Amino acid sequence: MTQTPVRFGLIGTGRIGQVHAASIAAAPDAALSWVADPFVDGARGVVERFGGTATDSPEALIASGEIDAVLIASPTPTHVDLIEASVKAGLPVLCEKPIDLDIARVDALRPLVASSGVPVALGFNRRFDRDFAAVRARVAAGEIGELEQLIIISRDPAAPPADYVAVSGGIFRDMTIHDFDMARFFLPEIVSVSATGTQAFDPGARQHGDFDTAVTTLRTASGAVVTIVNSRHSAIGYDQRIEAFGANGMLQVANAPTSLVSASTAAAVDAKPAFGAFFLERYAQAYADELVEFVKLVRGEASTSPTFEDGRAALVLADAAQRSAVEGVAVPVEL
Amino acid sequence: MTQTPVRFGLIGTGRIGQVHAASIAAAPDAALSWVADPFVDGARGVVERFGGTATDSPEALIASGEIDAVLIASPTPTHVDLIEASVKAGLPVLCEKPIDLDIARVDALRPLVASSGVPVALGFNRRFDRDFAAVRARVAAGEIGELEQLIIISRDPAAPPADYVAVSGGIFRDMTIHDFDMARFFLPEIVSVSATGTQAFDPGARQHGDFDTAVTTLRTASGAVVTIVNSRHSAIGYDQRIEAFGANGMLQVANAPTSLVSASTAAAVDAKPAFGAFFLERYAQAYADELVEFVKLVRGEASTSPTFEDGRAALVLADAAQRSAVEGVAVPVEL
Amino acid sequence: MTQTPVRFGLIGTGRIGQVHAASIAAAPDAALSWVADPFVDGARGVVERFGGTATDSPEALIASGEIDAVLIASPTPTHVDLIEASVKAGLPVLCEKPIDLDIARVDALRPLVASSGVPVALGFNRRFDRDFAAVRARVAAGEIGELEQLIIISRDPAAPPADYVAVSGGIFRDMTIHDFDMARFFLPEIVSVSATGTQAFDPGARQHGDFDTAVTTLRTASGAVVTIVNSRHSAIGYDQRIEAFGANGMLQVANAPTSLVSASTAAAVDAKPAFGAFFLERYAQAYADELVEFVKLVRGEASTSPTFEDGRAALVLADAAQRSAVEGVAVPVEL
Amino acid sequence: MTQTPVRFGLIGTGRIGQVHAASIAAAPDAALSWVADPFVDGARGVVERFGGTATDSPEALIASGEIDAVLIASPTPTHVDLIEASVKAGLPVLCEKPIDLDIARVDALRPLVASSGVPVALGFNRRFDRDFAAVRARVAAGEIGELEQLIIISRDPAAPPADYVAVSGGIFRDMTIHDFDMARFFLPEIVSVSATGTQAFDPGARQHGDFDTAVTTLRTASGAVVTIVNSRHSAIGYDQRIEAFGANGMLQVANAPTSLVSASTAAAVDAKPAFGAFFLERYAQAYADELVEFVKLVRGEASTSPTFEDGRAALVLADAAQRSAVEGVAVPVEL
Repeated sequence: MTQTPVRFGLIGTGRIGQVHAASIAAAPDAALSWVADPFVDGARGVVERFGGTATDSPEALIASGEIDAVLIASPTPTHVDLIEASVKAGLPVLCEKPIDLDIARVDALRPLVASSGVPVALGFNRRFDRDFAAVRARVAAGEIGELEQLIIISRDPAAPPADYVAVSGGIFRDMTIHDFDMARFFLPEIVSVSATGTQAFDPGARQHGDFDTAVTTLRTASGAVVTIVNSRHSAIGYDQRIEAFGANGMLQVANAPTSLVSASTAAAVDAKPAFGAFFLERYAQAYADELVEFVKLVRGEASTSPTFEDGRAALVLADAAQRSAVEGVAVPVEL
Repeated sequence: MTQTPVRFGLIGTGRIGQVHAASIAAAPDAALSWVADPFVDGARGVVERFGGTATDSPEALIASGEIDAVLIASPTPTHVDLIEASVKAGLPVLCEKPIDLDIARVDALRPLVASSGVPVALGFNRRFDRDFAAVRARVAAGEIGELEQLIIISRDPAAPPADYVAVSGGIFRDMTIHDFDMARFFLPEIVSVSATGTQAFDPGARQHGDFDTAVTTLRTASGAVVTIVNSRHSAIGYDQRIEAFGANGMLQVANAPTSLVSASTAAAVDAKPAFGAFFLERYAQAYADELVEFVKLVRGEASTSPTFEDGRAALVLADAAQRSAVEGVAVPVEL
Repeated sequence: MTQTPVRFGLIGTGRIGQVHAASIAAAPDAALSWVADPFVDGARGVVERFGGTATDSPEALIASGEIDAVLIASPTPTHVDLIEASVKAGLPVLCEKPIDLDIARVDALRPLVASSGVPVALGFNRRFDRDFAAVRARVAAGEIGELEQLIIISRDPAAPPADYVAVSGGIFRDMTIHDFDMARFFLPEIVSVSATGTQAFDPGARQHGDFDTAVTTLRTASGAVVTIVNSRHSAIGYDQRIEAFGANGMLQVANAPTSLVSASTAAAVDAKPAFGAFFLERYAQAYADELVEFVKLVRGEASTSPTFEDGRAALVLADAAQRSAVEGVAVPVEL
Repeated sequence: MTQTPVRFGLIGTGRIGQVHAASIAAAPDAALSWVADPFVDGARGVVERFGGTATDSPEALIASGEIDAVLIASPTPTHVDLIEASVKAGLPVLCEKPIDLDIARVDALRPLVASSGVPVALGFNRRFDRDFAAVRARVAAGEIGELEQLIIISRDPAAPPADYVAVSGGIFRDMTIHDFDMARFFLPEIVSVSATGTQAFDPGARQHGDFDTAVTTLRTASGAVVTIVNSRHSAIGYDQRIEAFGANGMLQVANAPTSLVSASTAAAVDAKPAFGAFFLERYAQAYADELVEFVKLVRGEASTSPTFEDGRAALVLADAAQRSAVEGVAVPVEL
């Protein structure tokens, strides 16, 4: 039985906002109803392609009475206020990560979200990557026994501009935040964080006191250890691998190849094309599935969407990692 | 600059007709205008999803005056007549393979097609697979030197029903026909065909005097040899590989994986999921690109679409292979 | 319990003779007793390294009374006479392939070998490669169901000198002979041979009417088909692969890597070193195991050594392939 | 020109002592002259197989006047005294790792070794693994640009007995010690150590306050980071991988396969046999090359043998890792 589509209000029409607009348009049970961006031409451009009403006012969007849910894809500093306004309006929210760079603001919002009963989901899209999800399901089904080690290798193609580094909140809050959530996707009960960060190559990181290279280990009470290896650049392309090591075996997710061709010559055998560009391409399927799953959440159906609490937990881990890397101590956490 | 879309008349709304309907709907420069199927409910179903006018009469479609091109996806015995009618109406044609099972009928149509100046393209979709096309381009660019051997491994997931085998024209005309065209995609100038066919497992093949297992070698004047290995079944899934061996190296196309996950246990290391289902999934991208390329042909732009002559050549090779397998002789061909 | 070692007489001290000398020296139950080579310095060189008595006379070796078995590694034209003399002296023989280039001479020797009761083994060393043997055992154990197709890819690193081509007996008797035996290792009951040979690159082959490129298909009565793809050169190195395709799955033997290292850069991912040099390196383990197995045969223990009949069968297939390639007919065989 | 072989005195005839005895016997420029073991039957067994004089007294061996070098393969607590006695006798030493579990004893010995001019090499055999060495050479040659990250995955097949754990010195001094040296093989100038250790599965580790699972990060002054992932067990077999990540690419060493066979069925594609047993098999070639390289050192030729200082540095890193894991602080080191 077809249901009335969930009407979305989309706030923010940058790169990731446009991805969500396309996902909403493509999902069978969703419709794009309002689009807000202070840069109103951006909103108009999205509306032209996918329909809906354009506005420069997120408040107007929330108050429109024509939407069933809010998708927040605006800059990070706006997230907390927009979540608050949406929740007060009784509108379920899907908010891009991170909730905020400041855990104090997140904690201030926490009671409202908890008591409201309004669903707030966080945009940790990688949980919806079918291969990561398949590995998690196979681990949960006991295929490799107790999970003892998780290795996440996560390297971006190229370091961001120095300007961006300056306001990014640092590598742990900006980049590793996805890996923290992936760690918790497998092992939610982290109790301690230890991180090493260095400036190996990026002048921007050096200039702004950030790291370009980082290794973080997370420990659970049961003795499982997560290792996250990050680099802000990767000559080979976007490097996204996972290795789940258990008592009885191992499950690995390889990088996504860009073709099925391999070349063999006297110089080298079985050489394959470098892997794909960046997250929009690599996680295209995940973004689409994320939206579908959020629609279920709005409808009150079972949903695997990560929650506000997951968003907060990732930020707590990022803060702990930052402190650990700077102070040289393992930092205990309570999530 | 956006152009007026090419208006298509689609004849035939079975499995492959529906793929083409979707490709037409998805292509930026194409529109579905008329849909014909003697089973008119099929035509209506397609029109409901993708628009256009439904009819049970291919003749009405051709005479409608509302189409710029004809896509023939009806049963093989209807192809020759529909090509003829379309060409006489001055309408460019994209026709599913094979043109016909009877080379005499093809040859009878040949002069009309040749003299008409109307483009007739054949639906050898695999030419548009990006990996096969990339290998061909790299061979043409000289990356592996002179091409000396081409190995095509092509195995369907499961043998067709005995009823289908009875009218299929035999494995060479029905299944290997795609591989003959792929061979000619790399090495057009075949001079000799030698084939071995057996009945290794399929009762349907035995019942109707067909083969379920076949190996065909094609020779060019310059001494290059193509080896085509076919089976009507494959427990692992649709098996579609190519190995281009040249004087200086080798290019290979592997099977398309269904995920990036591999599992390692005490029993086996690096085990991956079986490869994908069948041609509609495996060649989805190729079908879409085929349509886009045909639109260029209709527009008089450069196009890599295989031609009526390519369709005829593949059938000549299939006939030669059938004779070779039955009579135990190498069969010379002129294409 | 340690037994008295089998005392070997080795005839021929070229490249392959020296391999066998080393295998005899290394085997726990074998000893090198006499070494014969008309080029007596060759015999002396072997004796210096591995012990024994050197002679220029194979007859003296056979008549010495100090050997329990003869290993014939002299040039092909000498094989038949040396087998005959050894068998008449009651000495078990391990003879390098082929028995002879002339099937008439082989057939003339056949009754003596058959009636003598003296074991005569043929040096088809690849049967002792542990990976090929493992695949055969797994096929025999039913792991992939009925074996329907066997693909053997066998390419030498570089074409031999034109002088060698002139006396080699042609690609089928000289090179494919190993692949014919490998085919029969899996599927002994071949009933028909069809071959295509071309001159794709080698002036020596052209000069002497030989082929440098060949594809052979072998058929069994049950409908299994073997495909052998040969080239006299391979820029990537010695290319030796097998694919056994059965009703329920597939077993493959990959090329032997020369290292565990792979390199990934922006240009190519996962590039590995080219595979190894040539047969002496690739099949070193197989040569050693072949000798051990032959010692069992001499001792009257169960042995998997290929027999004189296997040697004859491979030659029959080679003759049939040669005729098939030249005359363009499938050639029935009785083995 | 052949030289007089270096005459070895071997102390200790356990598992690893026997490996070295075989390496000495196999090396062209080495000879086994004396073998000492308090358990004199062990010494006699080695002498029976490889020659030499057996004794229960290491002192007698050192004083024999019939040896040119000492190979110490006795239990760890004896190493310091035996190195001291050998150096005082002017005999070059190859000593198994670790020098000692107590850095104070190592430091006490340090001045003597430094001032003596007698070569003392440490048995970090993995430096001689051809694949690891090849990667290091390619990194040094600039193939992947500046080395920024090194990942070492090192997992033993099965946890040792609890009795062994009790006296092992802990996972970092007993197992990771090899990985610390491998880290320094690539990046000698480590300045800081951070480690996380847990008890994930092994009752023996729990009983004796040791870890069975550990992740260690090492930092260099230039900002390169080494990540070492350890587990005391691995269901798949001995897991020994390296990934060198540089500014321009990546070099990886895969696990050593036990065969070239892969199996594909409906259940899984390309499944390979589990990797090999344990270090004696995995590093057989490395042990042999280590001996050959040490012979060069004894001869005063250029040698790549790791030194006493390398042995001390690995122990310093192990101590730092132990402290880091227990106290939850990053530990600065000076090497």
